[in-house]
Order: sequence, then C-alpha cells, then structure tokens
Amino acid sequence: MKVRIALAEKGVSYMYKEEDLRNKSLLLLEMNPVHNKIPVVIHNGKPICDSSIIVEYIDEVWKDKSPLLPSDAYGKARARFMSDFIDKKVFLIGRNMCMTKGEEQEAARKEFIDCLKLIDGELGDKCYFEGESFGYLDLSLIPFYSRFHAYKMYGGFNIEHEFPKLFCWAKRCFENNESVSKSLPDPLKIHGFVQQMRKNVGLDE
Amino acid sequence: MKVRIALAEKGVSYMYKEEDLRNKSLLLLEMNPVHNKIPVVIHNGKPICDSSIIVEYIDEVWKDKSPLLPSDAYGKARARFMSDFIDKKVFLIGRNMCMTKGEEQEAARKEFIDCLKLIDGELGDKCYFEGESFGYLDLSLIPFYSRFHAYKMYGGFNIEHEFPKLFCWAKRCFENNESVSKSLPDPLKIHGFVQQMRKNVGLDE
Repeated sequence: MKVRIALAEKGVSYMYKEEDLRNKSLLLLEMNPVHNKIPVVIHNGKPICDSSIIVEYIDEVWKDKSPLLPSDAYGKARARFMSDFIDKKVFLIGRNMCMTKGEEQEAARKEFIDCLKLIDGELGDKCYFEGESFGYLDLSLIPFYSRFHAYKMYGGFNIEHEFPKLFCWAKRCFENNESVSKSLPDPLKIHGFVQQMRKNVGLDE
Repeated sequence: MKVRIALAEKGVSYMYKEEDLRNKSLLLLEMNPVHNKIPVVIHNGKPICDSSIIVEYIDEVWKDKSPLLPSDAYGKARARFMSDFIDKKVFLIGRNMCMTKGEEQEAARKEFIDCLKLIDGELGDKCYFEGESFGYLDLSLIPFYSRFHAYKMYGGFNIEHEFPKLFCWAKRCFENNESVSKSLPDPLKIHGFVQQMRKNVGLDE
C-alpha cells in the first residue's frame, strides 16, 4: 500500500502484477533472491525491494512532484525513525489486539494505546505529520485507516473516541488525497480477513 | 560501532558517554523514549536514534567530507537493502553459529555461508562495496572483522579459507581506514565474550 500511494502521489503510471505468495513466481525469486518477498518495484530493469526503501527511491527519482521526506536532515531522521516504529510495532500490536481475548487482549490494548499516544504527540495539532502537506510519515501510517473497523469489532478499541485527532487526521488523508483513497483496501475486507483468522485459530466459532 | 566509524570518517569530534544497559540513565530514557535503546546521538540538543538512521543523518549533515551513501537513487536503495540484510541476518546467524553445537550448528553454518555468498557476490572484485572508496555498506559490514576469530574458534568457520575476497576486503578496510581500526573492539574481547556466553548457557564447561 505504501508503494502504491507513493507512486500515485508522484503521478507515476506503472504495470501492477499480483503475486500468489503460496506459489511465488520465478520473476519474484529472481528479483528478490535475498528475501523472496513483495513488494518489488522494477525500474529501468533493476529491482528495488522493501517498501520503505522503495518509497525513498521513488521520492528521490521523482523528486520534483509531491516531496515525501522532509528536506532537512533532522526531519528525515525523525520521519524514518517513527516510520520504522509504525512498521515494526504499531501494526503488529494492532494485530495482536484483534487476535487475542481476555487478559492477553487487555495487555495488547494497553500497549497499543501507549504506541498511539506517542504517535498522537508527534502529530500534535498539525494537519499532517510534517505540517501542511501529505508526506512520508502520513504515507507510513495511513494503511492503518482500513483497520479501524476491525480494531473496533475485534479489539474493542474505538480510535474515534480514544484518539480523536488521529481519527480526524486519517479521515483528512483519505478524503483529501486521491492517492490514499484509491490505494487502501475496503475496511470490510480487513474485517472479513480478521474474522476468518480468528476462526482459523479457534478464537471464535 | 557504525556510528563511531561514521563520525571518524567525517572527522567530527564528539563527547562519548558509556551507558550501563542494566541501569539505564535518565538521559537515555528521555532521549529515546520509544525504545530506550542505544546508540543515540545528540546534536544541536536533539536526539537521533537507531544506528542506520544516525549514519544517514551524519552523512547528510557533514556531506562535504567522505560521502558514505552512493549519490544515485538506485545505489542508495541497494546499499540500504544490503545493509538491512547484514543488520538483521548476517550478524544474527553468525551469533547462532557460535552459540550452538552439533546439527544445529551445522545448519547455522550452512545458512551463514549462503548469506556470505550473497555478500561476496555484491563485493565482486572491487576494493570496496561501492568501488574505490570506503562507504556505507563497508561501514555496515566491517564490525564483522572483530568476529572472525570467534567464528573460527566457536563456529568452526574460517572465513579466510571460505571467502578469501571478503577476508581481504576486511583487512583492507582495517588497514587503510583509521576510522575502522580505531573503532573496532579487540577480536579477543569478542572471543572472551562468546566463551563466557557459551558457559552461561551450558554449551561448554
């Protein structure tokens, strides 16, 4: 999703190839022999792998339109650090919150709230994380928006009540940026996915 | 080590503060409230955390001397990708190889060799990973040099025999770059550390 949003922000047209992860294509194995993982962007015949690295690449190659990373070194470092935190912790803990019950779920919910407090502090009263325009950190966190419904239904966590500013930020990104609204999956799809996963591991009947 | 080498490459003088990780300082907790982890560089009163993010910051702020990252977008993406692979896999598997025995050790050794084949291919016949001068990827991998002795003694893996080009590259970095030779720990210190760890977990008497 991050890569799609970045390409849309830059107005780059591309050919999209879906990958069956249970039966990976030869092209994927050749293009990412180290990890055999998606996403991979092939540009000028060369592969670029790992979503964060791809987004930085896109931002540098198409630098004249919609800059994503801040221009100063400290702003870049801060955006990279928070983006890494989102990738490694926020989404994982959000998943744990939806895929547990009882005390375990309560612990995940507390941890999730601690994470969101940090992110909420980073956003402050700004429109977007870097101020007036959509950028790197907005792009890193916005896939989050599609999960709000699942967090509410299965994690017992209502972000609109708990973190109204973050909720408004997400709505703003979705409503004001076609790159976002056209790239995110339907929240009901995520809901259905979590529902199925919970059944598969015996959490629900 | 990566941060120390980067600062030395740029000729930046700094105050170094050792941290007792069993009793973390208030300063560390304040400067890295998200992870409470070292390394942290405090510059102009602001904290920069995570060694890879710090190295990029240093490279951008002191950009006129000893550039570390390649100047082109694809070179940067490639260096970041390989550096991440080194951080997340190579050091971890090297550690596993030293901290196991029997079949488990044999499996770790095979995995380690597969990793080094990829890295050896990336180096090719070049002096340094980016060609003629010491750069970002050299800096990411060179802490490796201090571990060769431990890999030999406890992992049964002699890099000089198995990957002579990588061995020569490491010697070259060490001998030609004071930033490296002054920053790396004594291989015997690493050896002693592994020896103690093996005793602690009951692998050796």
